[in-house]
Amino acid sequence: MIIKELKLHPIAIADPPLRSSYGLHAPFALRTIVELVTTDGLTGISETYGGDGPLAGLEAARAQIIGKDPFQLSRLYRNVSGAATNGAGGDRTQTYLVPGENPLDQASRTFAALEIASLDLIGKAVGKPVCDVIGGRARDEVGFSAYLFYKHGGGGGVGDDAREDEYGEVLTPEATVRETKQMIAQYGFREIKLKGGVLDPDTEVATIRALRQEFGATYPLRIDPNCAWSVETSLRVGRALKEELSGGGYLEDPCASLEGMAQVRRTLMAEGIDTPLASNVAVTCFADVPAAQKLDAVQIVLSDPHYWGGMRQVQSLSHLCEVLGMGLSMHSNSHLGVSLMAMTHVAAASPHLTFACDTHYPWQTAQDEVVTGGRIKFSNGAVRIPDKPGLGVELDYDQVARGRERYQKIPFRKRDDEAEMRKHVDPNWKRVLPRW
Amino acid sequence: MIIKELKLHPIAIADPPLRSSYGLHAPFALRTIVELVTTDGLTGISETYGGDGPLAGLEAARAQIIGKDPFQLSRLYRNVSGAATNGAGGDRTQTYLVPGENPLDQASRTFAALEIASLDLIGKAVGKPVCDVIGGRARDEVGFSAYLFYKHGGGGGVGDDAREDEYGEVLTPEATVRETKQMIAQYGFREIKLKGGVLDPDTEVATIRALRQEFGATYPLRIDPNCAWSVETSLRVGRALKEELSGGGYLEDPCASLEGMAQVRRTLMAEGIDTPLASNVAVTCFADVPAAQKLDAVQIVLSDPHYWGGMRQVQSLSHLCEVLGMGLSMHSNSHLGVSLMAMTHVAAASPHLTFACDTHYPWQTAQDEVVTGGRIKFSNGAVRIPDKPGLGVELDYDQVARGRERYQKIPFRKRDDEAEMRKHVDPNWKRVLPRW
Repeated sequence: MIIKELKLHPIAIADPPLRSSYGLHAPFALRTIVELVTTDGLTGISETYGGDGPLAGLEAARAQIIGKDPFQLSRLYRNVSGAATNGAGGDRTQTYLVPGENPLDQASRTFAALEIASLDLIGKAVGKPVCDVIGGRARDEVGFSAYLFYKHGGGGGVGDDAREDEYGEVLTPEATVRETKQMIAQYGFREIKLKGGVLDPDTEVATIRALRQEFGATYPLRIDPNCAWSVETSLRVGRALKEELSGGGYLEDPCASLEGMAQVRRTLMAEGIDTPLASNVAVTCFADVPAAQKLDAVQIVLSDPHYWGGMRQVQSLSHLCEVLGMGLSMHSNSHLGVSLMAMTHVAAASPHLTFACDTHYPWQTAQDEVVTGGRIKFSNGAVRIPDKPGLGVELDYDQVARGRERYQKIPFRKRDDEAEMRKHVDPNWKRVLPRW
Repeated sequence: MIIKELKLHPIAIADPPLRSSYGLHAPFALRTIVELVTTDGLTGISETYGGDGPLAGLEAARAQIIGKDPFQLSRLYRNVSGAATNGAGGDRTQTYLVPGENPLDQASRTFAALEIASLDLIGKAVGKPVCDVIGGRARDEVGFSAYLFYKHGGGGGVGDDAREDEYGEVLTPEATVRETKQMIAQYGFREIKLKGGVLDPDTEVATIRALRQEFGATYPLRIDPNCAWSVETSLRVGRALKEELSGGGYLEDPCASLEGMAQVRRTLMAEGIDTPLASNVAVTCFADVPAAQKLDAVQIVLSDPHYWGGMRQVQSLSHLCEVLGMGLSMHSNSHLGVSLMAMTHVAAASPHLTFACDTHYPWQTAQDEVVTGGRIKFSNGAVRIPDKPGLGVELDYDQVARGRERYQKIPFRKRDDEAEMRKHVDPNWKRVLPRW
């Protein structure tokens, strides 16, 4: 089984006007669908970040994958990353960079896309689901969280590609409760994450309280302002939400830097508030993990096969977190069903996974889905490992072609949430940290 | 592919009168050969510790493996170990217990034997070497070290099973140099390890100096007294061998406990002696690794698929050591070709491996080897990954039967180096730590 072809499909998918501390989502999110075709006619697929940068990274790796055996992943990693080993990695903070646009993890992202497609190939060749190829499933289904955003009215896309707005404008606690009820009714999620750092902290505190009021303590709550707050504000929110973020919830990247997070943690603990801090901004590579643990800055690491360097690296991260006594959750970006299945497989094969995974999947629509059979089904907030080889999904090439057409129609080639804010909300908007 | 049969072959193999701080090797070492047979007629093999304890552990796991899919290794681990996850593990020091006889790592040892045989099955099913099944090789051949022992005259075995003594008595620096020259001439090893803790420390220092004198600085030297020394003696040896253990060598388990090792390290560093300390006694499970790093007690961890919980756990350990800035080497016990190939495959698939691996292989003979085609070949001290599926070796069932016969003939069912010392060297011998 030798890889004879690498096909890259840059696509655009409708994305609603979601807000975060980075700014505003554009009407389309960019993704890249990757296909590896072997000499014996198998096709392995994956999905990764979109736009010019990720595409160029994959193009540059073409010579490393064509003519190669998909089992030779350790060598592929070395050749793509230029590193002699699987890499502890250096500093690659995402404080100022949206995921997928950080040049410091480009090699990890490129490798991950090729690794996942290779594992899909291997799974198909041996007739086993990917989770079983990489060590065997620890669970048959993987729980995801309801990932709530403050948003403007209107669905994703524009013109012919405009999508229905099922959620409407969500810029108040009441609207967020409505949004959450809608999403939970549809998907059955059992944990709730609010993307914060958008409204003033008091309103966000009120939002979390309203969610607790509505859903009760059986739905763990997490809030992620992506570093929008100062240490002082983080402490104020931490104190205010002492009860609401307890019992399986967490406070994610309240402020920037491990030092800031450590200060928040130290102060809260001294006050008897043990709300754990999570991170995918201050902790984005292996070298960050022991550093974060040493400072007690972070108690929960957010994994993600897309930028942590693929599935086996996420498994290694899972074990590292277990050894260091840290929790493990999973980060997400706007994505379709191929990424969802990759996340599901690696989560299934990572025994130490202590929270439901994030997913943006509810924010995308059937009109843009590229897997055959339409949208992946959730049951009680979880996705089940399909009884099929590989990732268990195949590409609908008509849908991929439509995604490519959308990509050709739009003018931008990288995610820029700040520019969108200036265009649609405030011509002078800049990302300032801390904002509050 | 379902496992329908587990076959366990307890065997005995001739073992020369090798000395260590644990005592004296008996004339026979005990091993267990494991076979897993699938419904579609494949057989996967592994080799592990021998005698009643390991055999009982494997027997107890029979119900966990029969009727199961060999890909479902995460579940097998959970079922064998009773742990919910892959396990950080608790304290399981080997200060007072010889490897294979520590009840605290029995679950890890049992799982490892079943995992390795399962990976051999998977490799055979997919037509790939095991190293490529578990992530792909980082190297095509794996270097081993010349593992020198002080020993009494006489080869292994007794009666019809007595083996030729190619090395004779080795209880002086001069004899050790001769032994090393013989072994290097035969195998081509490029790194040298001396099992110490046997003669008085001054004689062992003189032995290392004689080896450096003979082989020069291009052959890194390591010495392992298995905790026989006090902190003071460890410091004395560390100072005396400052030059000889530099340049890729190390001092392994000079004294007992992480605290003792930390004290040795701290004192030597303050004197400008940066000889790294290695361990497979104070560090035997994942929980020990960050503890050792935090104290700077250990800079090099000795892995071993047999007791660290199998191949994927060794890969995880390799990554953990890389992330924590620690080196990785590999521990060995008296073993045959099946174990040697398992060690070779996992070493090949562990990018962060910073030293040649230990092996006792030169101390066993062709008469006891159980793999077809006879003894595994070394070239320049390295074993090459065979271009064959699975581990790349098959059982010679006549040889296995002879090993079983030897096992039946001997009276003991566990390793007891202290009893051997009392029987053959000193009727009052006891293992006292520290001895010097």
